[in-house]
Amino acid sequence: MKASILTIGNEILKGKTVNTNMAYIGRALTFSGYDVHRSFVVSDDPEEIEWGIKTALASSGLVVTSGGLGPTFDDMTVQCVADSLGIETEINDEALHELEEMYAGRGLELTEDRMKMVRLPVGSKPLHNPIGSAPGVLIEHEGKKIVILPGVPGEMKAILESVLDEIKIPGREYYEESFPIEGLMESAFAQLSNSTMKKWAGRVYIKSHPQNSEVDHPKLEIEVSSVADDRDDAVKLVREVIQFLKENYRDYIGK
Amino acid sequence: MKASILTIGNEILKGKTVNTNMAYIGRALTFSGYDVHRSFVVSDDPEEIEWGIKTALASSGLVVTSGGLGPTFDDMTVQCVADSLGIETEINDEALHELEEMYAGRGLELTEDRMKMVRLPVGSKPLHNPIGSAPGVLIEHEGKKIVILPGVPGEMKAILESVLDEIKIPGREYYEESFPIEGLMESAFAQLSNSTMKKWAGRVYIKSHPQNSEVDHPKLEIEVSSVADDRDDAVKLVREVIQFLKENYRDYIGK
Repeated sequence: MKASILTIGNEILKGKTVNTNMAYIGRALTFSGYDVHRSFVVSDDPEEIEWGIKTALASSGLVVTSGGLGPTFDDMTVQCVADSLGIETEINDEALHELEEMYAGRGLELTEDRMKMVRLPVGSKPLHNPIGSAPGVLIEHEGKKIVILPGVPGEMKAILESVLDEIKIPGREYYEESFPIEGLMESAFAQLSNSTMKKWAGRVYIKSHPQNSEVDHPKLEIEVSSVADDRDDAVKLVREVIQFLKENYRDYIGK
Repeated sequence: MKASILTIGNEILKGKTVNTNMAYIGRALTFSGYDVHRSFVVSDDPEEIEWGIKTALASSGLVVTSGGLGPTFDDMTVQCVADSLGIETEINDEALHELEEMYAGRGLELTEDRMKMVRLPVGSKPLHNPIGSAPGVLIEHEGKKIVILPGVPGEMKAILESVLDEIKIPGREYYEESFPIEGLMESAFAQLSNSTMKKWAGRVYIKSHPQNSEVDHPKLEIEVSSVADDRDDAVKLVREVIQFLKENYRDYIGK
């Protein structure tokens, strides 16, 4: 099943913050059996967020968002997701109870800004935030899933981990291994890579990542991956192919 | 003018590689006067790359891509950009000359895979790659600009730096400064932030980045930015607002 990742935040677009959340989510979804096929970053603007949600959902069975959860004016993700889907929002009792404990228990007022964090799409499920105040949200809508996560990395990770069992695709086990090759140019490796992928009839994916200058001191990281019904099968396939590449790559050195 | 960034590569989507290129490009374009409003990552698949190019171009005057330049089968960006724009490709003489020096000068054959790197859209300009073998490309098409960069960070940076003067928007100077505030919750700062942005009539942008738990040990990084005709004006405006925030934020502590 295809998945897309949507990150919300001007600081990512401006390059002030590197989008490590995207990588973390991409990794988790890949190992949960998804084909993460697109990722988007949009600004803290309701029209842009809605555009992002709609565009991501159009091609994906799962969309995971991060950013734009919280109590400030530019935290608009939950409302925008609801608007995109045409779902009303309401104060979620379970989330409100947690928020009351967190703020009122410390003698703090539940202002309108804070209440906004527990106004969730009707029928959605709040995902407990063990670190911060804004809960994540899981929405199931017309056969698709949307997971809304905060932008603060620690909060994002904790909530994502808690929902992975629920979104994992059974029987799709991803495995990858990488190994380095020195002295071989990517343009020479290309021939071996192509023929090897054909030999294994598309059941493995090989990608070379140049670590250095192509012609002077070529150094490649070779990544081999596979998705199989069973993890052991995926591991076996990947290791077979790595063995084959290691036995054959020397023929391409200096070419 | 709006700009979009398109990154091509399965390794980014899978989270194997963190998209540092996107941050670097976003930073450079912001300081060149652009409003970087969307960013996309797509897989090494021609249909996906074409979708990405077309979608990015639809809303932007400048699109900068990184990744998918090079000699392997999955390096398809240049051809896909040409196809998206309906432009033919041809061997670029200037780029070919450099490629010949690089390979032939070392006794290496110019294979079909290698020649692919200098097959550029008709009318485009090759951007010298001082580190690797695949040149970047600058295309001007129907009033829009497309800059195609490699995915290897060192090569991407060197080529981008060389083209910044050519794409900079005159008279749009971006400036930002950040400062930390401890003991103030983001949900309390929200009120000050909103009123301050209104007071300065939208000429500055304020964003709070929580660095810690909202309720127990609140710590915020406050970012203030502005775009003005003149850099000194932008600096002055940002510093005025920071002064104002520093003078007023204590009223919101413990709220």
